[in-house]
Amino acid sequence: MTGRHADPDSGFDRTVQDLIDNKTKPQGALGQVEAVALQLARATRETAPRLAACELTIFAADHGIAAEGVSAYPQAVTREMVLNFLNRGAAANVFAEAVGATVRVVDAGVAGQAIDHPDLLNRRIGPGTRNCRVEPAMSAVQCDDALQAGRQLAGECAADVLCFGEMGIGNTSAATLLAHKLLGLPVADLVGRGTGLDDAGLAQKTDVLEAAAARTAPDLTAARALAEYGGFEIAMMAGAMLGAALSNRPILVDGFISTAAAIAALGIEPAAGRSLVYAHRSAEHGHRRMLDALDARPILDLQMRLGEGTGALLAWPVVKAASAMLTDMASFESAGVSGPA
Amino acid sequence: MTGRHADPDSGFDRTVQDLIDNKTKPQGALGQVEAVALQLARATRETAPRLAACELTIFAADHGIAAEGVSAYPQAVTREMVLNFLNRGAAANVFAEAVGATVRVVDAGVAGQAIDHPDLLNRRIGPGTRNCRVEPAMSAVQCDDALQAGRQLAGECAADVLCFGEMGIGNTSAATLLAHKLLGLPVADLVGRGTGLDDAGLAQKTDVLEAAAARTAPDLTAARALAEYGGFEIAMMAGAMLGAALSNRPILVDGFISTAAAIAALGIEPAAGRSLVYAHRSAEHGHRRMLDALDARPILDLQMRLGEGTGALLAWPVVKAASAMLTDMASFESAGVSGPA
Repeated sequence: MTGRHADPDSGFDRTVQDLIDNKTKPQGALGQVEAVALQLARATRETAPRLAACELTIFAADHGIAAEGVSAYPQAVTREMVLNFLNRGAAANVFAEAVGATVRVVDAGVAGQAIDHPDLLNRRIGPGTRNCRVEPAMSAVQCDDALQAGRQLAGECAADVLCFGEMGIGNTSAATLLAHKLLGLPVADLVGRGTGLDDAGLAQKTDVLEAAAARTAPDLTAARALAEYGGFEIAMMAGAMLGAALSNRPILVDGFISTAAAIAALGIEPAAGRSLVYAHRSAEHGHRRMLDALDARPILDLQMRLGEGTGALLAWPVVKAASAMLTDMASFESAGVSGPA
Repeated sequence: MTGRHADPDSGFDRTVQDLIDNKTKPQGALGQVEAVALQLARATRETAPRLAACELTIFAADHGIAAEGVSAYPQAVTREMVLNFLNRGAAANVFAEAVGATVRVVDAGVAGQAIDHPDLLNRRIGPGTRNCRVEPAMSAVQCDDALQAGRQLAGECAADVLCFGEMGIGNTSAATLLAHKLLGLPVADLVGRGTGLDDAGLAQKTDVLEAAAARTAPDLTAARALAEYGGFEIAMMAGAMLGAALSNRPILVDGFISTAAAIAALGIEPAAGRSLVYAHRSAEHGHRRMLDALDARPILDLQMRLGEGTGALLAWPVVKAASAMLTDMASFESAGVSGPA
């Protein structure tokens, strides 16, 4: 989970590592949990951060490129799933309940009329993006507005750790194009079946995305790439990641779409990498390529490919345990336990 | 996590799979969580088991073979760690708190006098086993007593899901010998550094274990192998696994030592396999070989090698989420969500 963007603050790191090494266990015996603990310390700038509360924010929006037949599901599903989130019936809801996390649902730009529901946070930038195969998905102003709304949503969140999830039919296409433009990986290496395309659907999606990619120069800035190809939910999530990082709070990065948002956030502010904890390796083709490019090793590999923040949520207990190791576990000295003979 | 011992009850499995496939997500999109859910249904014999409470029982005991220099730590650590568990300072305690599980600590046979503590469950079979390099670790009666005490401890546990952990200096040696005798794998493929042996220590441990293995016939029964090589904590854990399986409750199998206990339990009662959910792949050399032999794919791979039940505890939230998917997640029909176009 430690990416190449982590701060190389070796004095601080050494202090934290000594703390970990003096806990009542053989050195290194908690494996990746120890590495996560070190990263939590870096993210919070505290040697032993107490991380008790976790909140998932789900950003929903629609994508103009869905008109090109790049998804197995109709666009109406975005809206239907927002209602499912609000009724606490989706995987993200039941996983959040299982791991003790709270959930916020944000309409970042679902197609059609605004959804009227007391629990929905309305931050609509527009009724879905435009079709990025033929024109920019959004204007520069819309992109800025989405980033700013995300920053503000992070600021309004009181949790110690932030998870972000998304819903948007067509958003694996947007994520593929962002990763292509910002990491320089070929579209063919990143494109995948999303929610379940067949072979013909995958070939069609690849053709559409190659055409969309060819529409712009290869060296876009992160903000420009977000405007050209991003969804409102992805841009808003990138803004929320930047906001969380600014307040020294760890961010659990979910899957394929969330990692694309993280890549955009890193393009805008590389120092945000210190706060990113990669939660789960998605079964979506291309996520592994993204993670390799980021030198990231996620906590979990459960072959999930749903999004919504489900992977981030399931990693939260491991993150909580890593934090508790730092704050609550005894040292050899405090517990009176002997070291190696 | 589904082992070769799972019941092939295809009608029941089909019912559960249909339930899973109708949840509001693309088919298969929750990956291994779906496979865990199916196994939980099999273990409980309910299509949608509600699993809310998890308890960890830590069994501690000492091993005569520790006198042969097979561990990097002195035998006194077993007793010191029991006190650490009781004072809630060990990794298992802080992980249990982080994931919302309760903890019991059992003295199955720690060396020296009995430990007097109000929270310790005294089920001592003896003050440590004998040295299994030269003689049987325990008598057949002691082995039966340990199994029976374990069954009873499982019966006294009110939780929906049971985790088992262990503490015992020298117990990777016992686990290696059990797996060697019961799975037929070479000692050299199973032996590892335990809590941190150096190269010379590993060579010494290998020699000792080869000598111990040569002392008995290759085709021992599970009960006989337990008596010859097992620790009191391993035999008691095997009994507890049998008890939990009998009451149709899922068991989260922790790491190297716990898997050896599971192998012994399976040797006594193969039907117990239905209840075993493998939680974590240990970094201890040999655990991978055991898991391969059992055709088991653990939920987590965090490179931990501590035991105590730490791996089982971190898998509990995933198991809870899998159960919640079955019980609480909406179906396409109930949520009014469209299927593929």
